Amino acid sequence: MKALLLSDSKKFDLAEIATPVPTENELLIRVRACGICGSDVHGYDGSTGRRLPPLIMGHEAAGTVVEVGAGVTHLKVGDRVCMEPGIPDLSSKASKLGLYNVDPSVVFWATPPVHGCLTPQVVHPAAFTFKLPDNVSFAEGAMVEPFAVGLQAAVKARIQPGDFAVVIGAGPIGIMAALAALAGGCSRVLISDLLPEKLAIAERYPGISSVNIREKKLADAVAEATDGWGADVVFEASGSPRAYPGIFDAVRPGGCLVVIGMPVEPVAVDLVAAAAKEVRIETVFRYANVYDRAIAMIASGKVDLKPLISHTYGFEDSVTAFERAAEGRPADVKLQIKL
Amino acid sequence: MKALLLSDSKKFDLAEIATPVPTENELLIRVRACGICGSDVHGYDGSTGRRLPPLIMGHEAAGTVVEVGAGVTHLKVGDRVCMEPGIPDLSSKASKLGLYNVDPSVVFWATPPVHGCLTPQVVHPAAFTFKLPDNVSFAEGAMVEPFAVGLQAAVKARIQPGDFAVVIGAGPIGIMAALAALAGGCSRVLISDLLPEKLAIAERYPGISSVNIREKKLADAVAEATDGWGADVVFEASGSPRAYPGIFDAVRPGGCLVVIGMPVEPVAVDLVAAAAKEVRIETVFRYANVYDRAIAMIASGKVDLKPLISHTYGFEDSVTAFERAAEGRPADVKLQIKL
Amino acid sequence: MKALLLSDSKKFDLAEIATPVPTENELLIRVRACGICGSDVHGYDGSTGRRLPPLIMGHEAAGTVVEVGAGVTHLKVGDRVCMEPGIPDLSSKASKLGLYNVDPSVVFWATPPVHGCLTPQVVHPAAFTFKLPDNVSFAEGAMVEPFAVGLQAAVKARIQPGDFAVVIGAGPIGIMAALAALAGGCSRVLISDLLPEKLAIAERYPGISSVNIREKKLADAVAEATDGWGADVVFEASGSPRAYPGIFDAVRPGGCLVVIGMPVEPVAVDLVAAAAKEVRIETVFRYANVYDRAIAMIASGKVDLKPLISHTYGFEDSVTAFERAAEGRPADVKLQIKL
Amino acid sequence: MKALLLSDSKKFDLAEIATPVPTENELLIRVRACGICGSDVHGYDGSTGRRLPPLIMGHEAAGTVVEVGAGVTHLKVGDRVCMEPGIPDLSSKASKLGLYNVDPSVVFWATPPVHGCLTPQVVHPAAFTFKLPDNVSFAEGAMVEPFAVGLQAAVKARIQPGDFAVVIGAGPIGIMAALAALAGGCSRVLISDLLPEKLAIAERYPGISSVNIREKKLADAVAEATDGWGADVVFEASGSPRAYPGIFDAVRPGGCLVVIGMPVEPVAVDLVAAAAKEVRIETVFRYANVYDRAIAMIASGKVDLKPLISHTYGFEDSVTAFERAAEGRPADVKLQIKL
Repeated sequence: MKALLLSDSKKFDLAEIATPVPTENELLIRVRACGICGSDVHGYDGSTGRRLPPLIMGHEAAGTVVEVGAGVTHLKVGDRVCMEPGIPDLSSKASKLGLYNVDPSVVFWATPPVHGCLTPQVVHPAAFTFKLPDNVSFAEGAMVEPFAVGLQAAVKARIQPGDFAVVIGAGPIGIMAALAALAGGCSRVLISDLLPEKLAIAERYPGISSVNIREKKLADAVAEATDGWGADVVFEASGSPRAYPGIFDAVRPGGCLVVIGMPVEPVAVDLVAAAAKEVRIETVFRYANVYDRAIAMIASGKVDLKPLISHTYGFEDSVTAFERAAEGRPADVKLQIKL
Repeated sequence: MKALLLSDSKKFDLAEIATPVPTENELLIRVRACGICGSDVHGYDGSTGRRLPPLIMGHEAAGTVVEVGAGVTHLKVGDRVCMEPGIPDLSSKASKLGLYNVDPSVVFWATPPVHGCLTPQVVHPAAFTFKLPDNVSFAEGAMVEPFAVGLQAAVKARIQPGDFAVVIGAGPIGIMAALAALAGGCSRVLISDLLPEKLAIAERYPGISSVNIREKKLADAVAEATDGWGADVVFEASGSPRAYPGIFDAVRPGGCLVVIGMPVEPVAVDLVAAAAKEVRIETVFRYANVYDRAIAMIASGKVDLKPLISHTYGFEDSVTAFERAAEGRPADVKLQIKL
Repeated sequence: MKALLLSDSKKFDLAEIATPVPTENELLIRVRACGICGSDVHGYDGSTGRRLPPLIMGHEAAGTVVEVGAGVTHLKVGDRVCMEPGIPDLSSKASKLGLYNVDPSVVFWATPPVHGCLTPQVVHPAAFTFKLPDNVSFAEGAMVEPFAVGLQAAVKARIQPGDFAVVIGAGPIGIMAALAALAGGCSRVLISDLLPEKLAIAERYPGISSVNIREKKLADAVAEATDGWGADVVFEASGSPRAYPGIFDAVRPGGCLVVIGMPVEPVAVDLVAAAAKEVRIETVFRYANVYDRAIAMIASGKVDLKPLISHTYGFEDSVTAFERAAEGRPADVKLQIKL
Repeated sequence: MKALLLSDSKKFDLAEIATPVPTENELLIRVRACGICGSDVHGYDGSTGRRLPPLIMGHEAAGTVVEVGAGVTHLKVGDRVCMEPGIPDLSSKASKLGLYNVDPSVVFWATPPVHGCLTPQVVHPAAFTFKLPDNVSFAEGAMVEPFAVGLQAAVKARIQPGDFAVVIGAGPIGIMAALAALAGGCSRVLISDLLPEKLAIAERYPGISSVNIREKKLADAVAEATDGWGADVVFEASGSPRAYPGIFDAVRPGGCLVVIGMPVEPVAVDLVAAAAKEVRIETVFRYANVYDRAIAMIASGKVDLKPLISHTYGFEDSVTAFERAAEGRPADVKLQIKL
């Protein structure tokens, strides 16, 4: 089959690769939709400065089971599915603890030397493949991966019903965190950013209000909304070091900061301010045990991810899709490729 | 002022009582709405067999602040409020731990020798009085108390976003638990009962489906809905001993049973079945630290309690209201009195 | 090799069985010590009424690695080890959550149709085999399994440093729970039983005091020890239905009951009494992720299990060992067989 | 009575002050022992640069009840007690949640404008005064306060039985954290510092080993002790920004960092390294609900704080005591004053 291979910075080739064969407990899956993630863009335009070997990109995918390996019982040919892209060693200490995402030996799609899933057919372990209900489309199935990042953050926050949450950064992951927090029990979410286009997208969801930090300090907006008490949870999803000065002013005594965005360098954290409120700081690394939850939330209508798919390209237009993704248009949340 | 005093079983008198005076950190509140709870009915018709002294009933109330004691800072005259009816010793060991609801010295409205709030004016501590936002009516404010019971159960369950929950019993508290679970992060709730009228009310809420256990076994319905895995949380809200045989069949491995309904006698629990799945069993006693959360959830629209107010009576028709409450009509969820 | 096969009730045969061969990620282990558990005795004397197929008993074992399958990296030939006897499907939903002990597909030594480890050599997955430090003997290594049950209970209790714990029942598992609770952070443990011999053994450990419930009510002893507040945690390790009436009198408001002992029939539980204190009830099924912790606690000297090994028999005296175990002498905690 | 008043930097005066009178729910206490804390020293020598008003120092005290206010039931004249120095508003939102230490309105001994307890008699609320068992001396009672800081850290860590902990910094609070962690369930504690005198004191306790980071990197020592897995909990008790580079190398996947030491300035934290292991970061502010636990641990012998009292001075030698405290001798852990 022909796969789209990123052979150099900003250079894709159509390469002939062998169709993989599923072995025990594996599936062969016909990929039908794949989202483009920021990390794919970094690979594409070389913006992280790290040079990749020739690589098939993509890790946000859904498709149809076309062949079933021995031992698979919960899925069958024809099932519509989405795939969790990280595969751990299930017998490792971390995996046995239920923390398979932080197993040091995990392998992940589109992370060298492992190819991604932006290719017609992929083999994947059945244990990390999830059936999509009839009312969840392939496009939504391909949104499960980025939503899972937000959901992992919401799980880590240990939301209590009725919590007031803040999300810093209204990019794709910030919006995912906001939706996960809201569907995950928060009564309200306040999201902040510098770009009105991004805030406008988030605000379309009932329960989410926004603050443009060019116009108002986040801590002031939080104090107004909470009678000076502070947010139960603050999700930092911008990855910007500038989010940190004063961040604990937005958290309530005994509240929580969940760090989702990853600043490139170590960032100055005011631990005295955190300690004065005994703030708990949680960090997240991808996700574990949330794919089934994410699908249930989409299927039940608690979370509607469809408005976040800004545009869909055919496989043959993948290069155009990557070019647009690299532009980083403010009103684009997620671009997808249909295979 | 004239208060409605339950002087004997099924006998109310209009008695002249002194208007109370707020002291330090207290408020005088003009009651405007009060719901009738099952426990009020038990007091009214003597159905628990326990004979009460002459007592003013009622503990589900909202009203307006008319006088403010010294030291009160967060509320002022004219504020619309609802009141948390249990008052603990805040310096007790339980209270200092944040568990003030299980402080043995707590006093509670309409629990002898303490009168309830079905009276024109009451004095209440400011620390247990909560401001209602403009978009929350007195009627909704008086629903906060029963909703708080459901919310306490949802907090105790430690719901994770996307959980599948079961509620056994579609009476007022069962429905409250279902709504709290759903707004508190569950993707779906399955509620069970014997009476179709009760199930019909619950089912009107998106996200809640129902099973009539005259027609299908609960465990079978759960297995179908969860591919045989079981519910993350089961809320037992019927209080019936008949709910317990096989109850753990409905719970997933590592799941949780929250006991809300109170069987009069000790009930046979299959601990071997619970242990085989390492089920955690939580119990609830009223609520603590959830009133502000409940109000936030109502104000944000995450929970709509208005459809559960089946009928509202004037204060002068209180006897009629209690008579209807004592009938226990299947389609009645909550009857309220307007003062 | 010759294995001791329980061919019928109270009847052992020396049967010739093939030496197993380790495959990928497996080890061949020369068993050196094996404890006799109550469940082994039930199999031996048929006391549970359930008829077993011919079976090799034993699941509490330690030994030496004699052969290493492909892919094993953390253990090598000559390593002294102990083995966790339950083997789950690591790709199951429960295992991925870290709850591999409640994976419905777990297989366990000496549970038909799976033979136990009271045999010269066994094959076992490396992921469930743990290296013994030099200062931990084979005899202690074979005590890890029963201690792990107590440790699982201690983990489930979520002990806070300085907790006061009660253990009901001073049999082997009760003592294990007491030691795990004490080493796991409790300041003191009160253990109860009817038999002074059993209490005497427990009391030899500093930090453990005892109450003979023939002489004093447990709740009274707890009230005296805690100024009427109650125990933070009560471990029920007797499995007797008679332990349940009044059991919540011994628990503090907001405390926890951990059910370890398994009553054969459903047992009457006073849920009203539990709810009045919002007691959390935890159940345990074997253990997960505690073997390494147990070994660390033994190696560091925090737990001394050696005094609990009442007698050690040679493999050739296995029948005598089982006969004595079946006697149930009050002062016997653990009988072991040396291979 | 004559009290020792710090009237200026390094200047004490004996000032005549009125003996306070206990009102409702208060006690008058004859102080018998008081420890000197680093914060007292900062007040004494002005090392924080902040100028204090004339102030009585001291907040680590034990004594005897000499008068009892109305409403006090759990203590009586003659009781030997120790006192928790922070007094919150018990009706605040934080206090009702059980987080009274982070109530913004808390008042604390020796924190302007509130005098400390280094004075013959003090009035204190009964709810924050704790009876000492007969086997706990005044000197040990005055150690409860610094131990409570370590204990709060141990509680926040959510230690699981058998955890391996690291403590960075072997000053008084580091040693307290190490002892709390060990008694609180850890199997072993590794403590690090630059000064061999400090490490020598910590190492005298069985279960605590040490690493001098002049000789070996902390992460290397942890890797050796844990087969490369990392510590379950790292307590940062040095307050030095230099502790942070590489700190997450010492934590296991899914582990916890508890920040006790307070760097004066915001400190550069490598959030990417934390996230790669999903490390949870907890902060502590004094303590809440641990005094009774601390006393129980001392009384039961689980924690022996006596070796940490380096020297005791008479009240008349208070100035000498402060001078020595200000020297910061490496082998001094705690200096106390006997009144």
